[in-house]
Amino acid sequence: MAVTLTAPLVSAPLAAAADSLPSWNEGPAKRAIVDFVRRVTAAGGADFVPVPERIAVFDNDGTLWVEKPVYAQLAFALDRVKALAPRHPEWKDKQPFKAALEGDLQAVAAGGEHALLELITATHAGMTTDAFAHLVTDWLATAKHPRFARPYTDLVYQPMLELIAYLQASGFKTCIISGGGIAFMRPWTEKVYGIPPEQVVGSSIKTRFEIQEGKPVLVRLPAINFIDDKAGKPVGIHMHIGRRPIAAFGNSDGDLQMIQWTTAGSGARFALIVHHTDAQREWAYDRQSHVGRLDKGLDEAKAKGWTIVDMKKDWKVIYPFQTN
Amino acid sequence: MAVTLTAPLVSAPLAAAADSLPSWNEGPAKRAIVDFVRRVTAAGGADFVPVPERIAVFDNDGTLWVEKPVYAQLAFALDRVKALAPRHPEWKDKQPFKAALEGDLQAVAAGGEHALLELITATHAGMTTDAFAHLVTDWLATAKHPRFARPYTDLVYQPMLELIAYLQASGFKTCIISGGGIAFMRPWTEKVYGIPPEQVVGSSIKTRFEIQEGKPVLVRLPAINFIDDKAGKPVGIHMHIGRRPIAAFGNSDGDLQMIQWTTAGSGARFALIVHHTDAQREWAYDRQSHVGRLDKGLDEAKAKGWTIVDMKKDWKVIYPFQTN
Repeated sequence: MAVTLTAPLVSAPLAAAADSLPSWNEGPAKRAIVDFVRRVTAAGGADFVPVPERIAVFDNDGTLWVEKPVYAQLAFALDRVKALAPRHPEWKDKQPFKAALEGDLQAVAAGGEHALLELITATHAGMTTDAFAHLVTDWLATAKHPRFARPYTDLVYQPMLELIAYLQASGFKTCIISGGGIAFMRPWTEKVYGIPPEQVVGSSIKTRFEIQEGKPVLVRLPAINFIDDKAGKPVGIHMHIGRRPIAAFGNSDGDLQMIQWTTAGSGARFALIVHHTDAQREWAYDRQSHVGRLDKGLDEAKAKGWTIVDMKKDWKVIYPFQTN
Repeated sequence: MAVTLTAPLVSAPLAAAADSLPSWNEGPAKRAIVDFVRRVTAAGGADFVPVPERIAVFDNDGTLWVEKPVYAQLAFALDRVKALAPRHPEWKDKQPFKAALEGDLQAVAAGGEHALLELITATHAGMTTDAFAHLVTDWLATAKHPRFARPYTDLVYQPMLELIAYLQASGFKTCIISGGGIAFMRPWTEKVYGIPPEQVVGSSIKTRFEIQEGKPVLVRLPAINFIDDKAGKPVGIHMHIGRRPIAAFGNSDGDLQMIQWTTAGSGARFALIVHHTDAQREWAYDRQSHVGRLDKGLDEAKAKGWTIVDMKKDWKVIYPFQTN
């Protein structure tokens, strides 16, 4: 009897939610999302969370957009190396620049984090913050993903766009917490995801305030300021948001500490891992992948009952252009 | 004739604005504020600014609350030194701790920035972020300002509270950009100013993510992460907000670069300096003051036509408790 009586009270939001996530197949992942949102937004309910505390954090690469065959930001850096090469003849014989110029992604990747940092500081510094934002915007307008031959910003995940919009409509503040560069994301996240620059957290290099020709500018310096990955993610969340999220969305071991930090708070919590299981429409990878490795995170997700999205099963479409 | 014809169009918002700033005397400062807000919010007007770009930044100490005789955070640090002294017998003979224990503020101040940093790292680190937030909250609940014998959070400026609320009601996102500690402000800014933690930017020490007894925590480390003062303020704004404010409010030379950065953008811009001119109700100080020195900023404000608040003339009351 109780079930019958309460059913009409919950069916309306459930129906509304279902309409909000049209690219999600019916299944445990979608049900878990809708159930969580319903619980934290139900006024007077045991799990109700006031609007200011409805903070949801999203990883970017592999969670909101494609990260294979390499991170978009690495593709950007490689293109910058090519553009800057005439001014750096020494790069022809010096790794990782040699590999970058030859388009040898395997060799670049083999250089590990150190090679990546060298590429980033050589290509992302030495200009004003405004000039860098223009470089990013111009690159995204022309660069094409090697497999899909489309702009990178076309290769965002339609089901995740719906999820962001659904959470926003439910009073959530949606934030990006990415290992990628904060300055690489902010020029386009508002337009593409509906997430404004002040809600984007990422890795950064240092900047310095200067007056150039009577005009105040911020100059990007070739020195790492902060790495917003792994154990850095809770640090970045604390620094930028200052309160603990109640929901976290990731896809790799780089997101593990962010999810641990989020779910360790009191009250209703939600964690979701996007598992890349769809080699045909996107990619299938987890424990053995260099980009977006999901190993410890997969074990912990299973042990702790975090929601795991099976991309192949749970998503009707992957990219927005497939909805047309 | 033009004046007569347009008057009815502007009188309504002006009247509404006047009601929003009841603690401001009629005069050039109030007129400049209301005029700016009217221009950037007038749909279709030449100076219209869309809501997402209506970012206003406020210094905290001396702009939103009292900073004399010493910064509240320094008073907190001195009280922490006393509380921790039994565990540090060596402090009795070591500056700046000796001066702190003796309550000799002049001697502490004489130690300059280095002494301040020593006090901060010794008293603000070595605990979790949650534990530190509790220390701040507990201290603010009991500590009394030496002159007014009231909690520090009573000594916020009523006219500035009205200004924050007026800007928020006009679609602005109001942010604090303070040289003070970000973790010292966030526990109370939402309650006192209506400014949530994610809109508070300040100086910080480093933190580290750890698992302690199976629970994820962030531990505060005795190492400076970022100084959000002077040329650091535009850097902090860029890091946390990622877009240029259109209005900036400060009171000292520490706010000069923040105001330069804000006003150098295109379109309508607003800058305001709170000039402490009221020795009777608050304090009168500017060019010669150790705390809140206003020297270059006063000259530049006059040269560039920034609005200067004459606290004595422009404010009917200083503190909220005086409105009762």
